[in-house]
Amino acid sequence: MNMNEYIEHTLLKPTATKEALEKLYSEAIEYKFKGVCVNPINVRRAAEVLKNSGAKVITVVGFPLGAMVPEAKAFEAKRAIEDGADEVDMVLNIQAVKNAEWEVVTKDIKTVKEACGQTILKVIIETDYLTKEEIVEACKCAIAAKADFVKTSTGFVNGGVGAKAEDVKLMYDTVKEAGLKVKASGGIRDKEAAQAMIQAGAASLGTSSGVKIVNG
Amino acid sequence: MNMNEYIEHTLLKPTATKEALEKLYSEAIEYKFKGVCVNPINVRRAAEVLKNSGAKVITVVGFPLGAMVPEAKAFEAKRAIEDGADEVDMVLNIQAVKNAEWEVVTKDIKTVKEACGQTILKVIIETDYLTKEEIVEACKCAIAAKADFVKTSTGFVNGGVGAKAEDVKLMYDTVKEAGLKVKASGGIRDKEAAQAMIQAGAASLGTSSGVKIVNG
Repeated sequence: MNMNEYIEHTLLKPTATKEALEKLYSEAIEYKFKGVCVNPINVRRAAEVLKNSGAKVITVVGFPLGAMVPEAKAFEAKRAIEDGADEVDMVLNIQAVKNAEWEVVTKDIKTVKEACGQTILKVIIETDYLTKEEIVEACKCAIAAKADFVKTSTGFVNGGVGAKAEDVKLMYDTVKEAGLKVKASGGIRDKEAAQAMIQAGAASLGTSSGVKIVNG
Repeated sequence: MNMNEYIEHTLLKPTATKEALEKLYSEAIEYKFKGVCVNPINVRRAAEVLKNSGAKVITVVGFPLGAMVPEAKAFEAKRAIEDGADEVDMVLNIQAVKNAEWEVVTKDIKTVKEACGQTILKVIIETDYLTKEEIVEACKCAIAAKADFVKTSTGFVNGGVGAKAEDVKLMYDTVKEAGLKVKASGGIRDKEAAQAMIQAGAASLGTSSGVKIVNG
């Protein structure tokens, strides 16, 4: 298991310094990570630095509350792709999930997927807020909307725990037949946690502890 | 002092139920609050319920990280206004503030203000993350970009305290000559806190404790 190939090296803090961002990019190259995950304002610079490095540029949309209208998320996604994003991680309409408005949830994702075209779209379902039943239903919406991945967490829930292996397994079991993959993110801080996520079915890991994880 | 006239009755939790939102709207009418502050996905319904009530519909843009590109914030603002928003509360580019990129900060606000036209634009500077000097500089950017208000907080900073009277006073002292106003928000949970903010210069209060505040 080449752990580095799973890692989406992540820096989404709104207070990030330029130095911290440049360090993120150079570490992604040095450790041959799968890619970096940065806010939309940083996509252009990330794409410039990582060009021809093999590391992908991943960004977030409707982040972290998911409470923007679908068309605004689609605009944000389209612009991010123009700026050089290789993959888009959107937050679904959490409120609609909690209110069991599954058509609203699906339409929101579908609107963003149409803007993404062939670009990989991951749907952050924010497991910290959801019951097991809601996790399964949210995954079904992602399948119906033809998204490419479901992802556990934003890492921005106050008091939240982020990715749990049991949730990753539940998500994996729900989406695998349809061909979607799972990204585990939030709270993955060491090699043991990373391995547990991969064993539960994760194909990608979103973490800010990538260097620590690969160094054991 | 008619406290109710200051209150922007706020519900921005991504997990809000329909019932909680409907209660927010009816309380805004019952207590004659200045308005409600809701996420973009709820603007249409809020505008429908509050039509002719005197209560304004306020929404948030680039919320709560401020890390979207200016054009995406502008798109979101324009759409919110089309949906019925009377006022827009945007989060500035916090990262650019922390990196002292004042032209980037100003251009971001200006892009959103142009999309807003005559609609009131408030600039959330997220005081929890800023030094006193950064608070002053961020306010100067809001003045330069012709925003209408500066606002203290999103209420979404993990471990943050939100509005502090000393920050409100500093913001008020910085913007008053230019004709901008100050909205205090985040952590205002009782009448004493609300009064302290108004005495420090706040013209609006963003709080989810409005009913408790007016009932003493």
